[in-house]
Order: sequence, then structure tokens, then C-alpha cells
Amino acid sequence: MVNFKEDEALNTLNHSCAHMMAQAVKHLYPNAKFWVGPVVEEGFYYDMDLGDVMLTDEDIAKIEKEMKKVAKTGAKIYRREISKAEALEEFKDDPYKVDLINNMDEDSTVISCYDQGDFTDLCRGPHVDNVKLCRYFKLIKHSGAYWKGDAENQVLNRVYGVCFPTQEQLDEHLALLEEAKERDHRKIGKDMQLFMADDLIGRGLPMYLPNGYTIWTELENYIRNKERKLGYLHVMTPCVGTVQLYQTSGHWDHYKENMFPAMEVEGENFVLRPMNCPHHMRIFANRPHSYKELPIRIAEIAHDFRFESSGTLKGIERGRHFCQNDSHIFCTQEQIKDEVKSVCDLIFSTYEDFGITDYRCVLSLRDPADTKKYHQDDDMWNTAEQALRETLTEIGIEFTEEIGEAAFYGPKLDVNVKPAIGNEITLSTCQLDFCLPAKFDLTYTDAESNKQTPVVIHRAILGSLDRFMAYILEETKGNLPLWLAPTQVKVLPVKNDDEELNAYAQKLVDALNDADVRVEFDTRSEKLGYKMREAQIQKVPYLAVLGKNEEAEGTVSYRLHGEQGTTTVSFDEFVELIVNEIKTKGRNK
Amino acid sequence: MVNFKEDEALNTLNHSCAHMMAQAVKHLYPNAKFWVGPVVEEGFYYDMDLGDVMLTDEDIAKIEKEMKKVAKTGAKIYRREISKAEALEEFKDDPYKVDLINNMDEDSTVISCYDQGDFTDLCRGPHVDNVKLCRYFKLIKHSGAYWKGDAENQVLNRVYGVCFPTQEQLDEHLALLEEAKERDHRKIGKDMQLFMADDLIGRGLPMYLPNGYTIWTELENYIRNKERKLGYLHVMTPCVGTVQLYQTSGHWDHYKENMFPAMEVEGENFVLRPMNCPHHMRIFANRPHSYKELPIRIAEIAHDFRFESSGTLKGIERGRHFCQNDSHIFCTQEQIKDEVKSVCDLIFSTYEDFGITDYRCVLSLRDPADTKKYHQDDDMWNTAEQALRETLTEIGIEFTEEIGEAAFYGPKLDVNVKPAIGNEITLSTCQLDFCLPAKFDLTYTDAESNKQTPVVIHRAILGSLDRFMAYILEETKGNLPLWLAPTQVKVLPVKNDDEELNAYAQKLVDALNDADVRVEFDTRSEKLGYKMREAQIQKVPYLAVLGKNEEAEGTVSYRLHGEQGTTTVSFDEFVELIVNEIKTKGRNK
Repeated sequence: MVNFKEDEALNTLNHSCAHMMAQAVKHLYPNAKFWVGPVVEEGFYYDMDLGDVMLTDEDIAKIEKEMKKVAKTGAKIYRREISKAEALEEFKDDPYKVDLINNMDEDSTVISCYDQGDFTDLCRGPHVDNVKLCRYFKLIKHSGAYWKGDAENQVLNRVYGVCFPTQEQLDEHLALLEEAKERDHRKIGKDMQLFMADDLIGRGLPMYLPNGYTIWTELENYIRNKERKLGYLHVMTPCVGTVQLYQTSGHWDHYKENMFPAMEVEGENFVLRPMNCPHHMRIFANRPHSYKELPIRIAEIAHDFRFESSGTLKGIERGRHFCQNDSHIFCTQEQIKDEVKSVCDLIFSTYEDFGITDYRCVLSLRDPADTKKYHQDDDMWNTAEQALRETLTEIGIEFTEEIGEAAFYGPKLDVNVKPAIGNEITLSTCQLDFCLPAKFDLTYTDAESNKQTPVVIHRAILGSLDRFMAYILEETKGNLPLWLAPTQVKVLPVKNDDEELNAYAQKLVDALNDADVRVEFDTRSEKLGYKMREAQIQKVPYLAVLGKNEEAEGTVSYRLHGEQGTTTVSFDEFVELIVNEIKTKGRNK
Repeated sequence: MVNFKEDEALNTLNHSCAHMMAQAVKHLYPNAKFWVGPVVEEGFYYDMDLGDVMLTDEDIAKIEKEMKKVAKTGAKIYRREISKAEALEEFKDDPYKVDLINNMDEDSTVISCYDQGDFTDLCRGPHVDNVKLCRYFKLIKHSGAYWKGDAENQVLNRVYGVCFPTQEQLDEHLALLEEAKERDHRKIGKDMQLFMADDLIGRGLPMYLPNGYTIWTELENYIRNKERKLGYLHVMTPCVGTVQLYQTSGHWDHYKENMFPAMEVEGENFVLRPMNCPHHMRIFANRPHSYKELPIRIAEIAHDFRFESSGTLKGIERGRHFCQNDSHIFCTQEQIKDEVKSVCDLIFSTYEDFGITDYRCVLSLRDPADTKKYHQDDDMWNTAEQALRETLTEIGIEFTEEIGEAAFYGPKLDVNVKPAIGNEITLSTCQLDFCLPAKFDLTYTDAESNKQTPVVIHRAILGSLDRFMAYILEETKGNLPLWLAPTQVKVLPVKNDDEELNAYAQKLVDALNDADVRVEFDTRSEKLGYKMREAQIQKVPYLAVLGKNEEAEGTVSYRLHGEQGTTTVSFDEFVELIVNEIKTKGRNK
């Protein structure tokens, strides 16, 4: 989808359209005051103070109508430059503009305004030269937004819109938006009854319903079995630690703002954990280790909690609670390369299983200027960044480098993908850490009986299981591969009250159940067409439709989700077909 | 094991022995001051202020020696009664005794003292009449204890002991204590590397190491599969909720002191959850329900957090974090009996699988006088208690009734067992709840299209998985049945450097791995005897010892844990034997 902020021509056009919207709003709400109206990745918005009015969908329709009128006036747009003093005088009745002017650079002696018809706005520009160029627009959504993003301040009306040079481009964009909405995992999750949000439980704390938890469990088992074969050792640790633990690790210094507040119990301070590293470090420290044991790979599907501001929460993609597919590999310096390679192999073989091909590898480095975010030790950073860069180059990973994206304790390889709506997300990560093992005084005995500090590789393959599930739902539009589908086969007899037919259907259900297939037998007294439509909404991959013919011949007629045609095979062939597709994850399909 | 508090004669004897210990301590530490010295279930203790001295094991040995001397004096013990004023005068130099005297009932005009040789103590009595009767004693353990149990106060020395009428009884008791220590799951957990405690993570927050988590996962899969076959629907919900959620449920009124403190985030108050009921209630409320759907059985292996004072924490049996094998069954009034019966069947069939035969069923009722602990609604309680009592009687469960043990929202059937050390614990529970469904406004539509409130049955079969694991470890002394053992088979070649023999051993390892058996191949260059002893400590059920004979004949010689003899069977027979024993949970063994 187009990025309005980065496309220069679109940026200017949308910026002008924001002014045109403000002009229309001023016509309808003469007391309206305006804060800022920038262009963002997804179009433009304007934050507006309309007194007590909080806009409704109907109001938005009226504003659109008024905007069309304004566009038809064909008013020219003029730039005008005035001094700071003149600006303060001109906008003296608008406290928002006064605030803006006062916060401008001391140096900016010249301030620009844009006039169009009966409307003037303070603006750096540039703009198009006539409002009529803004006529192909659409207001997309509206919400409340705190002034300056501060929850202590008043709530303004924020209205988002998009604008294109032609109707065709606008239509095309709206169609894409519509498709993205359909692909949005929050919508799919609701349709398929996978998870639910509930403010009484708490914002950012989704609950997995039975269907969703089935998918979740499949993901958990999938990655755990894969890891087990590679020698990972799975543990279970509590999602709480003492504040002292996070002071030791450095999270308290560098990551506290992403954490929940502490809880005092009997004089001890506990805190919900944002990451599992400190727990796994303490497990390593629980007994002495020899170099012969290394690498030791501690793994956990681990519950974590992070503070995310409510504005950034997004279904199961970004919640305040999530489960990381986490591991910490404790190894020697010499083992780094093999271990990083093995992690990369695991990432990409997992992607193959899920058919993920559209991703981007990033080597995330620290920003040396950001002393608050990062553990301070130049030598350590130089060594770690160079080691990871060399390793990735040697094993042949193509990557770009990004400054300021590292973890506070070390550099990392991130594998990023793009969800249906919003910004790129990181699915997998592989991080090199010389910092935490030292902070936790971890040691092993080398061949010469000397104490050495191990290196730690932090890695997550599915990242957070929640986020991964969101991504897979969006990629497949909810049409999950058979092995992940909550209900894999639905058995529908064409008649409801035929005892022999029902017995035959039950035989199929039993055979599938015995083969650990998730099968549903729809025996309700509804019409076949109704049941089939319902199965369609639930996105059940296989519908086995059984009539007297199938019963007489010992066959099964099945229909694949989203297809019209029916295929008939023998009873045993059908069961085998299903079992085989599950087992091979559909790759032999 | 004997209960010192409840056995009247032992109670008196131990009480006198506490005085004798105080007398000996006074000889060794002339400035010693004494707080209280009661008899408890496990013997006696005395809390003593010894200035800066914190007793060591060596000090305890000295005190025991001095006690023997005192016993030999054969001093008589005399009761003496004085007035409150006289008592205050007599003990004026001892602030602890003054505090005790001042806190006695206003009515108690007469206070009793006991004199023995050079020692006098304030005491209600009764006592034995000569210190020599206390000569068969043992000091068991010592620790620090806050004065009056308040962490703000000074720390006193608490020394525990036991005393018996004869040396034989004392020896027998000490042997039992020793065995209990050996059976203590905390010791077994350490020996077998199952879990670890770590104050930096937090007291009461055990971490499961790979071996322990293997057992945990087996328990989880075991009960989940059993539940799934019975139509339970598994969900996953976060271990946090809003305070408002727990205000709605009533936990905030009746259960707050067992909860962690709240955390404020963006003006919302979050709290670690002590129970999952409210989450499951909200899942039920997420969509409308018809009577045709009931019963709906929502299940979860759910992470919970409860505040437990640090003194009551006990390994994984009683932690501040644990996982409940929880379910909430939403049903009609008419379905109560069938559902309770089905829950009881599930409890007892589970016990059969684990060989648990020594348990006690309790019908736990509310204490109507305790208005703080219980939801107030007499009618509701009368109906619920009567319904559960009748149901249990009808389905033929034998139970005793206990007042004041109900949940705050309803009566329950508890199934209790006795751990190696300490008080009875509840393994399973089945609770009848007319309260929470109303508080959460839950409804379903009945056959006449009227809204009705469902009944909720709360139930846990393995209780908390952590506590259940502790119990099973103690019952089996760590010699777990094959299906639960972290390592099921250890393969040991009799020689380390014989390539052909190693290849044969590897073939066995591969065959077992393919059959999903947890097998370890010990290839270290240690002597066979050393490896076998180690496997003994790790309590590995099967040792497969392979020599040239076995290799030549394609056989496997195996030794069972704790047995001396060796059995030889063919390669395939061995694999089959193992697989079969795992599958049948050892019942066809």
C-alpha cells in the first residue's frame, strides 16, 4: 500500500486536503479551533477542538459533503509570510496556534500562512495551488486524541482522510483498505471465534477462546518439537521477578518504562517480567558448568507482560500480555558462529513450513548517542556488533543495518514482515549478548580449569506466539492450513433424520477422531445449505457431505473451503488423505 | 506421625520440656529473655531473645548437653499462683513477660508460675512434676522468628524440639522424621534437578528445570486429553485482571488479603489473579447461549498468583505462583447432579491412574458467623449446600462435613491427602456456585425463550499441577512411574571405546527415540559403576546395560531402578516392553 508520507506529491496533496477539511469544519462549526494536521504513513489527519462536540459518523458525512462544496469553489491557495509578532497578533484568538507559534524555533523570524477562500491556516507548506485538486478524497476514520498525546489534557477530535489525484486511484486505494480490513486478524479472530477483548479483564489482555487456543497449542507443539530435536531444554519459570533481579540485569535502568509498576509484598518488590533473560541466567547459575556441556540451550514458551500505551494496542499482534518462543543459548566464543547459523537455519526452515517468503533481515545496532537506552560499554558493543556482522556475512544472510534498534544489552538480527494494517513487525530475532552473562557473574570451567564467562545468544523463532498467530491469520485470511485449523473436517449428512445415514456419518466421525483429526459432526436440525454457509464462515477446510449414495458405496464426497466442486473418494482414502495432509503440513497436497 | 498438640500426655510432657530447654538456655546465656514456648503439631518450640546471638548448630548441641544435665538434677516442678501485681513485680526485668502479663484477661486475677530448680517461668500449665521425665528429647531445628510474627519487630531465636516418655519412642519418631525428610519433595526435587528456588527471582516463585518441566508437561497432557474426551473446551487467559473485575466477582471484598497488590497503568488498576473464575465467566458472557448448548465446560491450565506469607511457603506444594487444573461448568439446575457425578468420576479415575488410595472427602460449608469471608445470602447458601449434600449422597460419595471451609461463593467437595511433612492438603475440588453467575449477569435462553441464570460448577482434578507433582514425588519417593519419569531409559555400554558396541547402543537409542521414549545415552568416559550409581540417584527407571554378548545376540539386558537383578530380552521385546509400560501407565506391568 502507498506510503503518503514518503510519496512527495501525495504528501503535498494530502496536506492541502487536511486544510480543506479544516475549512469545511470551520463552516460547520464556526468555533472550531485547530491543533496540528500532518501527513502520516496512512494519509492525513487533523486534531480539532470542537468544544463539547465529539464527532459521529453522521457528522463525518456532513463534513465530507461540505468539503466537496469547498473543492468546487476552485479557490486558489496562496502562501503568505509574516513575522512571529504578526502571527501572534493574527492568531491571538486561537490558543492552539499561539502555543504552536510560541514553541517555534527562536530563529524562525518568518512564519508562513496559507490562505484559501475564507480560510487561513498557519503552515510550513508546501501546498497545491487550488482546492479543486483535492476533490478526490475520503475521510477514513475518526477518534478522540489527547492534546499533545498527554492523557492529562483535553480530548480533541482527530479525523483521518486520504486524497488522490484521480478518482480511479482513490477507488483502488479504498478497495485495498477494504481488503486489509477483511484481512485484519482482529476481524478474522472475531468471525472464527478465536479470541476476545474485554475491558473488564483489561486493555491489551486478550483471552483465547477454544478455537484460538487450538491454533495456539498447535504452534506451541510445532516449535517445541522442532527445538527438542535440536537439543533445546524446555523449562517453565514464573512471569514475575523481584525488582532486584531487573536491577541486576539492567532492565530497571534501560527498560523500566516498558514495564508494569512494582508490587510490594512483605518488604520485597515484585514486578511482572517484560523478558525472560534474567530467569534463564539464574537457571544457568544454579549449578557449576564445564565447557564440555556447552552449548546449553534453555528454552521456554514464556509469559511476559509489557506496558504498551493503550493507543498502540492491536489485538493479539500487540498486547500487554504475550508468550515468547524464547531461548537463551549459553556457549563459548568459538561456538557463536555455529549456534547463530543453527538459529538462522531454524528460522528459515520454520518459514518454509508456514510458506513465509516475504521478509526482510535487519542487523539492529545500538545508537551510541542514546546513553539512556543502552548499556554503556563501547568495547563490548564494538566486539559484539562486529562478531554478529561477520557471522551473518559468513553464513550468507543478506541484511541491512539499522542504528538504534538493538536490545539494550546487545546487537541483533531481526527478521521483519509487514502485517495487513500498520507498521512492519519483527517475527524472529537472534541476539548476541556479552553483557548479561557478566552482570549475572555466569561462569563455566574451560579445558584448563579456568573460569570463563559464557556468551549468550537470545533467540525467538515464532517471536511471540500471539503475534505470529496474528500474522498467519492475516496472511491466510483465516484459511489456515489443515494442520492449524481449529476444526479440520465437518461431517454433514444431507438429511437430518435418516438413521442409517447418521450411523454412516458417525462411523466417519469415529474414524477421524481415532486418527486425532479435529472433526465436528453437525447433527442440528438445520438445512444443509445453512450448515454449509456456516462452515464457510468458520473457514473449515474440509466439508464431508454424505448422502445415500455415499452410504451405499462406502464413499465420502468432500468439498474444500472456498471451492464449489465436490470430489468423491472411498472412506479409507478420505481418512488417509486428511491424516496425510495434516502430517505433511500440506506440502504434498 | 503423632500430633503433639492433640495427644494430651505428650502435649504436657513437651510443654515441660520447653521449660527445661529455657532453663538450660538461661544457664548458657544468663541475659536470655523468653517470649512464648507453646506445643504445636510437630512438638514444642520456644522463642527467645539472646541479645545479638543468633544460634548455630553448635550452640544447639551445647544447649542439648546442658538440657541433659538439667534433666539429671531430677528437680521437682512446682506450681505457684500469684496475683497480677505480684507477677508484674516478679518479672519486671523481663519486658516480654510484662507484655504477656499486661495482655492477659482483665478477669485473670490469679496467674500461675512454675518453678524448677533455679528457673521459674510464667505458665498456665499443666506440667509434669519432675524435669527428669523430660530426658528423652531432641532439638529438631532452629530459625529466626519476628517477635509476634511482625516483620517490623526484632528477630528472636526459635528452637524446635520433641520429647517422649521413652528412648524407643523418641528413636522411632526421629526415624520417621528422617524418612519424611527423605520423602520431602523439596529434597527429591533438588536431587533429581526438577526445580529450583531463588530469592532473586522471588520467594515462593519456583522455577521448573528441564527434568521437572518434563513431568509437569506429562501431567498437563494427561489431564487435558482426559478432559478433551469428556467435552471440555480449553482456553488460555492472562493471569492478570482489572481490580474492577475482582470487585464484580466479590474477590476484592472476600479474598483481597490473599492477593498481590494492584498495579496502576494509565489510570486502570490491574492485579495478579488468585483464581480464574472471573475470566471464565466473561468468556461465557462473550456471546448469547441457548439451553441446548449447556453444559458448557470451559477449562484451563491456568497461571495464578496468591499472596502467601513467607513462613507458609513450601517448595512447589505451596508457592505464590502455581497452575490450576481448573474448569468452570456452566449448566442448568437439572444438570447439576450429572455434572457433579461426572466430575467425581473423573477425580477417582484419575486417582486410579496414579494409584492414590489414601484420601478423605470433605463437604466444606460456610461459617455463617464469618460475614467477612463469605458472600452474604442465606437463601443462596441453604440452597447450594443442600443441593451439593444431596447430590453427593445420591451418587454415593462418603464425606464428612466441615464448617468454615467453603469458598466465599459456595460450598464444595474437597478431596484431601496428607503430604510427607505438614498439614493435610486438598488435591481435588468440586464446588457449586449460585453466586458468581448472578454477579456477572450470566444468562442463557431456556426452551420457552426466557432468560435464565446458569449454575456454575468450579472444579479442579489435579488441583494445582505444582502441588499434585509435589504429592506424587513424595508418594513415590521420586521413583516415578515410567510414563512420568524425566529420563525413562538410560543406555550404558559396558565399555566406552568399543565402536561396534557403541553402534549397537546407538541403534537402541534411535529405536527408543523413534518410539518417543525419553532415552539418554551415557557416552562419557566414566566407569560403568559410576554411571550406574549416578543413574540410581537420578532415579532412572530402566538401565539398559549392553555388552558384547548383547551385541552378538541382538538382546538387551536391563535393570530396574532399585533392583539388583538383570533381565535379558530381545532388542524388539525391550522396545515393546518400554512402549507398552508407558502407554498403559504401568498397569499391565
